[in-house]
Amino acid sequence: MVVSTINGTSPLSHSNGTTIPLSTFSRNSFVNVEKGDPVAFRPYWEKVRDECTVEIKGDEWMSYLGDTNNLCWYMVPQMRDAILRLHNVVGNAVTKDKFLVLGTGSSQLYQALLYALSPSKSSHRPINVVAAAPYYSEYKDATDILQSRLFQWTGDAALYDKDEPYIEVVTSPNNPDGTLRVPVVNSGVEGKIIYDLAYYWPQYTPITDQLDHDVMVFTFSKCTGHAGSRIGWAFVKDIEVAKKMIRFVQLNSIGVSRESQIRAAKMIGVICDGYKNLKSIESDHLFFDYSKRLMKERWEKFKGAIEKSKVFTLTKYPTSYCHFNKDLFEQYPAFAWLKCLEGIKDGESYLEKLKIRTRGGGRFGVDAKYVRVSMIGTEDEFIELCTRLSNAKRE
Amino acid sequence: MVVSTINGTSPLSHSNGTTIPLSTFSRNSFVNVEKGDPVAFRPYWEKVRDECTVEIKGDEWMSYLGDTNNLCWYMVPQMRDAILRLHNVVGNAVTKDKFLVLGTGSSQLYQALLYALSPSKSSHRPINVVAAAPYYSEYKDATDILQSRLFQWTGDAALYDKDEPYIEVVTSPNNPDGTLRVPVVNSGVEGKIIYDLAYYWPQYTPITDQLDHDVMVFTFSKCTGHAGSRIGWAFVKDIEVAKKMIRFVQLNSIGVSRESQIRAAKMIGVICDGYKNLKSIESDHLFFDYSKRLMKERWEKFKGAIEKSKVFTLTKYPTSYCHFNKDLFEQYPAFAWLKCLEGIKDGESYLEKLKIRTRGGGRFGVDAKYVRVSMIGTEDEFIELCTRLSNAKRE
Repeated sequence: MVVSTINGTSPLSHSNGTTIPLSTFSRNSFVNVEKGDPVAFRPYWEKVRDECTVEIKGDEWMSYLGDTNNLCWYMVPQMRDAILRLHNVVGNAVTKDKFLVLGTGSSQLYQALLYALSPSKSSHRPINVVAAAPYYSEYKDATDILQSRLFQWTGDAALYDKDEPYIEVVTSPNNPDGTLRVPVVNSGVEGKIIYDLAYYWPQYTPITDQLDHDVMVFTFSKCTGHAGSRIGWAFVKDIEVAKKMIRFVQLNSIGVSRESQIRAAKMIGVICDGYKNLKSIESDHLFFDYSKRLMKERWEKFKGAIEKSKVFTLTKYPTSYCHFNKDLFEQYPAFAWLKCLEGIKDGESYLEKLKIRTRGGGRFGVDAKYVRVSMIGTEDEFIELCTRLSNAKRE
Repeated sequence: MVVSTINGTSPLSHSNGTTIPLSTFSRNSFVNVEKGDPVAFRPYWEKVRDECTVEIKGDEWMSYLGDTNNLCWYMVPQMRDAILRLHNVVGNAVTKDKFLVLGTGSSQLYQALLYALSPSKSSHRPINVVAAAPYYSEYKDATDILQSRLFQWTGDAALYDKDEPYIEVVTSPNNPDGTLRVPVVNSGVEGKIIYDLAYYWPQYTPITDQLDHDVMVFTFSKCTGHAGSRIGWAFVKDIEVAKKMIRFVQLNSIGVSRESQIRAAKMIGVICDGYKNLKSIESDHLFFDYSKRLMKERWEKFKGAIEKSKVFTLTKYPTSYCHFNKDLFEQYPAFAWLKCLEGIKDGESYLEKLKIRTRGGGRFGVDAKYVRVSMIGTEDEFIELCTRLSNAKRE
């Protein structure tokens, strides 16, 4: 296990040779691991910052239109090519015979999919939207915000027993708990499945299969860490579903930022070029190698801290053969899912007292003794998190 | 009147001295002026392309967060400062004591506003959304796409006579017809007004007032012509409305592209710097001077073509004093709104036969004898449009 001290030089220190700065945390400041801002990979992008530089001139990319020959008319060809190349390199999804729909992050695509998969006649009752608990905390609000007559949030997929049409959201690996998921609804009615594959990338989990589902959603944010770009994409088998999604994106935001597309295409190109020139490059310059090592080191350190604390238990993950890395690996999820031991009823409140801000189980449709902790924040924050957790004592 | 032939050198020819290329239109190809893609201003941005260049390095702008000190947490300070500076230079809106909410284009803000201005209790009936006809063709679908229980499209504001709460959208200058608008609903109930000010910029209309409404929406697309960036903003007086809008944008797309924000801030900076250094700069280098001259020249040419055709009449616009240009000006709207003379019942179909693709009145809630024609397409397209229109004969 790699042991890093707050003041020490971490193996993940910056490429320019500077060490991680002294902790910016005072005893009274909060460590905020409540959100999932994926800034952990920034040191990698600092290393390759110049080769990733994008330059956009004043008169470029002005039009609403990206590619009038593509069903997804607001997507530029560079973006499409980069996405297809990335999946080809990683081998995590079958892209052949599917329509590629670009979105302003995967959040917009989630809404577009609810619209596209709902029966369009208003005479129908709203279709039920479910996900197995614990489920991503924003699904409920994102589904119900506009109180649509087309769809409604119905909660835990495992409890679904209606004889009515439904949409099941399968997030795999799952947010918050990192588990690998399959559909769980057992109903007489055929359901529609949205696979949210935000975390099906080699730094988080072994790539065991080239997935080939009818609806698969990915996001640039959790793949490379560029959350500010708001780029997500979906592979969709049915052209009618794709058309409805594109119409939704048109009415919702008239397409997706051209600047973000150009930049995302560039970053993906740098990642893929690395794997193409495999032999001439140090492994530290390969994005998924770097980011997997980072996640592995963090998880080992984190497990050590949890073990010391004797207050929590952690989800156990299987080891599988990763076709991308050509080796056996464990999972290193973007979030840790902690269960408090007996005596602590509300994990979020307990950790607040330790000046650790987390997201409690209630937000994910389960008991308050669970909490979600981000593993992809800054290094400084992560180290302070481990220090505080390892000092946690049973009340 | 400036007379340009298809093959001639236009006063709007490129800064590098090249003339406008030979028309790319064959007799059988369509002139598509149906959409409002604002590419007309590209030659200006070609002139200043290098001073507008934006460079983004691999590790920059990765976070979801733009400014944690701002209510609108996904907006970067550069974007906020640029927007405030632009309104200060143009003098078209009072920004003091208002909250600035950024959106993925103004389309997203329209949806965010419907959500924010609707009564939140589901026990209420949906609030009625109206706009005076002819109204922007996408309002209806954008309002009704998800069949919300919070709001519903109710059509022409001039016909609204219900004793129920409503939201009136006032687009001024109006899309499609360029007229200056005020609210028209005359109801016993107090309504909420959304001012859509997409075209309240000096190239389209005299800036007669510094507007000071509770809800004002602007878009970068129609201001500078950078439609691909998907940047819009709203000034909102009520903090609760602003908060709800921001929550909507969070659930809808977790904020707005950082790359677009950085670029939009840069372009706006170049425009404002021009007016700051007024004396040292040629007028052709001032964006609004350039774009107003372009719109004026196009409108003069267009009016000539319409007069020759004897098939259509055009909306008449008043001349007003523009506080920005310090002179009297007519309006030069982004769209022309044509009314067919007696004998032609369907303007869109009539123009299809002339190989001119337009958007018919039905889409804007009025009679099919009206059509909307984009005045902000490419120069080549515009010239071909005028040639074809001037050859139009009564059936």
